Amino acid sequence: MSSETGTGAPGVLAEQEHYVRAVARSLGGFLDSKTGMMAGISPDALALLDSIRSLVTGGKRLRAMMCYWGWRGAGGAEHAPRIIAAGTALELFQAAALIHDDIIDRSDTRRGAPSVHRQFSALHAERNWALDPERFGTAAAILTGDLCLSFSEEVFAGTAASEPRDGRARSVFDTMRAEVMAGQYLDILEEVAGPSRDRSGAVARAGAIIRYKSAKYSMEHPLVLGGALAGGSDALLAAYSAFAIPLGEAFQLRDDVLGVFGDPAETGKPAGDDLREGKRTVLVGLALEKASEADARFVDQRLGSAELSGADISRIRAILADSGALASTEAMIGELSAAAFSALAELDLESHSASALHALATAAVTRRA
Amino acid sequence: MSSETGTGAPGVLAEQEHYVRAVARSLGGFLDSKTGMMAGISPDALALLDSIRSLVTGGKRLRAMMCYWGWRGAGGAEHAPRIIAAGTALELFQAAALIHDDIIDRSDTRRGAPSVHRQFSALHAERNWALDPERFGTAAAILTGDLCLSFSEEVFAGTAASEPRDGRARSVFDTMRAEVMAGQYLDILEEVAGPSRDRSGAVARAGAIIRYKSAKYSMEHPLVLGGALAGGSDALLAAYSAFAIPLGEAFQLRDDVLGVFGDPAETGKPAGDDLREGKRTVLVGLALEKASEADARFVDQRLGSAELSGADISRIRAILADSGALASTEAMIGELSAAAFSALAELDLESHSASALHALATAAVTRRA
Repeated sequence: MSSETGTGAPGVLAEQEHYVRAVARSLGGFLDSKTGMMAGISPDALALLDSIRSLVTGGKRLRAMMCYWGWRGAGGAEHAPRIIAAGTALELFQAAALIHDDIIDRSDTRRGAPSVHRQFSALHAERNWALDPERFGTAAAILTGDLCLSFSEEVFAGTAASEPRDGRARSVFDTMRAEVMAGQYLDILEEVAGPSRDRSGAVARAGAIIRYKSAKYSMEHPLVLGGALAGGSDALLAAYSAFAIPLGEAFQLRDDVLGVFGDPAETGKPAGDDLREGKRTVLVGLALEKASEADARFVDQRLGSAELSGADISRIRAILADSGALASTEAMIGELSAAAFSALAELDLESHSASALHALATAAVTRRA
Repeated sequence: MSSETGTGAPGVLAEQEHYVRAVARSLGGFLDSKTGMMAGISPDALALLDSIRSLVTGGKRLRAMMCYWGWRGAGGAEHAPRIIAAGTALELFQAAALIHDDIIDRSDTRRGAPSVHRQFSALHAERNWALDPERFGTAAAILTGDLCLSFSEEVFAGTAASEPRDGRARSVFDTMRAEVMAGQYLDILEEVAGPSRDRSGAVARAGAIIRYKSAKYSMEHPLVLGGALAGGSDALLAAYSAFAIPLGEAFQLRDDVLGVFGDPAETGKPAGDDLREGKRTVLVGLALEKASEADARFVDQRLGSAELSGADISRIRAILADSGALASTEAMIGELSAAAFSALAELDLESHSASALHALATAAVTRRA
């Protein structure tokens, strides 16, 4: 087992690659199966399918992989159609969330291509259509995201139809969707309400955001979903949660650190991008608690300003480092990682699943981009 | 049977009222059941539930009623929990669609209250939060709509779990969602692309929009869904479609006429509102075909202009009337209504369902607001 390098044993990797390719084929096949219906409505409606297709060809398939190993760890059969369908549903859901996220964040690119709302506004401009291209792009992307959300559900319903009567998988899927949307709401709320709220609560608020928007959504729910679909015991599913939640929190805290201190050459994002966006992370919350009143006020007031200068970014970074917020965040990442690996060690899984989850976890907390 | 006045027999009305109240209770109960989960995430997240609750307390419940009579007409039992759940799922889906529609159309009000994005931007302004209230309102409403869409699906999954293995109801629900989103896309596309497209295709394009966005979504799919859930024969479901599609098209054409020629005192909307919005209806398409080149160009260029003057509106109305477009539309409404009523007469339904559908159909095509 070469999990310390984050790659996993060769047999594990091959099995995972095989699954990821099967999910990619399933995504393509599902969208192809909708071509006739959409073309029958109007050839124009194919643009919606095309933009979903372009989005789901990319991505790391992290959620699908977690789901697969949750399934396998609970005794599910290698490459069973149901777990391929579950991974497909998760990837479609993620695509829908990204489409709407990019509208909310006004992101121009996603997975190396224009974001969906930008694709539609570009189409508008290219064809010289009437009225406002931005507005058309946003409207079309809202509808595309809605369609993709419905597709996700349609695929998921196929996996749940043969589920044992307890309905645990359906319940995980429903909870996942509600929690991630609530988490995203808390995120946009904190951006606007954070500056006028009690600074001493900032870390707790940021903690709730990463738990619901990120840790549970990206790690816990997919893993538990796979386990539930395979009929895993309640004890196993609880142990999955005990591993995946701290792992997901460590993953997100690492992301937050990279968003401020990461090397642009490795992250592919401009330095300090998260500061310009005004993300109120745990890292920022810790600085608001620990820094001097003047420094805390500077961070509170400048965060999220579109005109943040290079000097502003340097000063905020210095405050994050000098206040001890960065060191505290690194310490939290260390503790959460330790908790995750210790929970994983206690899990009595078949060797491929144990090895794969170890490799995924290692990659998640040690990444530099 | 007093269906010619659109009210139906007393027993029918009482049964329908009873069902509508049961759906309203079910909607309230479902949202209440989510309060604990949302409050557990954060008390702030309750705002999402509150805005969904405020929206679903209103509305005519047209889709739920169609679904109920489709169920009853196929032999489903009076007030069965499954058909109450199906109506609840349809109402939640409609609420989700309205939330996103109002963002797309920039509508400030809905069902006599501020639209959801306006509720959130008002909350932002009232609390003096940072950054832009409009942008926060839009972002929060996108997420609220997504949550509501997921809720709709969650409730629907409960009805389909006990469905016969053929999965027809699930398939209707999936088709409904995809078709209405495609139809809405065609609608926003026509607003921007219409002016530069072939005028002779305008009626056909507007016809596709009302078929998918309105007739199938509001009438056919709910009715067929109810029939499928009750295990109705394929022949019955096909007969439902033969009734509901022309009915829905007539309903929408009537809506289009009222949007231009309706009495503001009765419709509650300013005169010519649809012209200012730039809706490219069948009525408009017929005028583009039938009017003189100068008149057609005037309509093409002025439609959708926010600065449309009272004189512009009067001129467009005159063109719609003088070109014969209005008379042609009225003739189409007459033919479609006749087709719907004739299909209904051929349906051999139990008397309550027949009476109720007759009353709903009459109300749909003769309304003045």
